Amino acid sequence: MANPAGLPADGVLDLLGLLAYASLTAFFRISDDAALAISLTDKTALAELAVAEFGHFQLLKGRIEELSADPTTVMQPFVAAIDAFHARTAPSDWLEGLVKAYVGDGIAADFYRAVAQVLDPATQGLVQTVLADTGKTEFVVARVREATEADPRLAGRLALWARRLVGEALGQAQRVAADREPLARLLVGGTSSQLGDIGRMFAQLTDAHAARMAALGLAN
Amino acid sequence: MANPAGLPADGVLDLLGLLAYASLTAFFRISDDAALAISLTDKTALAELAVAEFGHFQLLKGRIEELSADPTTVMQPFVAAIDAFHARTAPSDWLEGLVKAYVGDGIAADFYRAVAQVLDPATQGLVQTVLADTGKTEFVVARVREATEADPRLAGRLALWARRLVGEALGQAQRVAADREPLARLLVGGTSSQLGDIGRMFAQLTDAHAARMAALGLAN
Repeated sequence: MANPAGLPADGVLDLLGLLAYASLTAFFRISDDAALAISLTDKTALAELAVAEFGHFQLLKGRIEELSADPTTVMQPFVAAIDAFHARTAPSDWLEGLVKAYVGDGIAADFYRAVAQVLDPATQGLVQTVLADTGKTEFVVARVREATEADPRLAGRLALWARRLVGEALGQAQRVAADREPLARLLVGGTSSQLGDIGRMFAQLTDAHAARMAALGLAN
Repeated sequence: MANPAGLPADGVLDLLGLLAYASLTAFFRISDDAALAISLTDKTALAELAVAEFGHFQLLKGRIEELSADPTTVMQPFVAAIDAFHARTAPSDWLEGLVKAYVGDGIAADFYRAVAQVLDPATQGLVQTVLADTGKTEFVVARVREATEADPRLAGRLALWARRLVGEALGQAQRVAADREPLARLLVGGTSSQLGDIGRMFAQLTDAHAARMAALGLAN
């Protein structure tokens, strides 16, 4: 919740650092995964997503600098959790990379929407800008559906993969919430940081995830 | 040389395909190499270069589409040579990656400047736009100078590396010029495709390269 002067609440720098490092890492991981694409069209589509993530990073970094903070310092507390997430979820092929990009983009958008409500106006505006730039992953739906129609056994493997992605993401998110008290408090509306509240927020994210899995034609 | 109607000369699609695939590949290779950076500042600086390359790719791809051609088809003849160049010049550390980005950006800029003169106005405008967006590698000069001052033996290794980069690039360029007659003719001003003329163009590029090596504090 913004304080009366509209200045960032405690925890906002943490949030910006988390989002900035997540975007920067997404840029590198999606670029890497794009290399797995066979066609130049697919490669380009995934590269565009990577570049969008870098744009988000630059916006978030700019806001951190506006708040007279050092981006590297502000991102540092989240490096271990985000790196661990990616180390545990390296796609073994192109389709796993596509599903990861789609799931990641979707969860990120839900998270941005959820946190926007508790932010000061300037940070909220930034979050809305980033949000307007998500949802570029609709091409993934067609690609995954084509692949699972051609080989129905793929659907089971990709559904399992998507579940693992969300499990790993929530595991790291719990770790971050436990470590960073002001951030956790901010995320539940500035009133408390009960793990139950964080849990409810996560439950909303996983509900939306289930809807995305259905869109992909994958059982959740 | 543009034909009287200002329409693209023969070979221009080849040139656009070559530049588009080179930019797309540079995006992927520089993103990869950025992962070798230790500090987030350096990582970000190299990621910015990668993103700029992707922007060039999008401009070039757009122009290919304007000419009613399919970008994948137009890029295809250059995939083998450009992929071979990168396979032979994978940096073994961060400094080699930096030098590669600097040398590559410099040679690309010289090449854009050289070809701009022989193009139709629309393609020329595009090349000027791309050109205005190069030269973001000045930070490399400071980084390489710091490193070689701290450890003078590095200078010899990096100078050798830079020579290898140019050698490999010219080798692949000769291969492309020999394979693609209309492109080679275009590059020497639309009048002939004598290998001697191509050779003179390459000589200009290597002269400019020597100046860049001096800026880096590396013997050529």
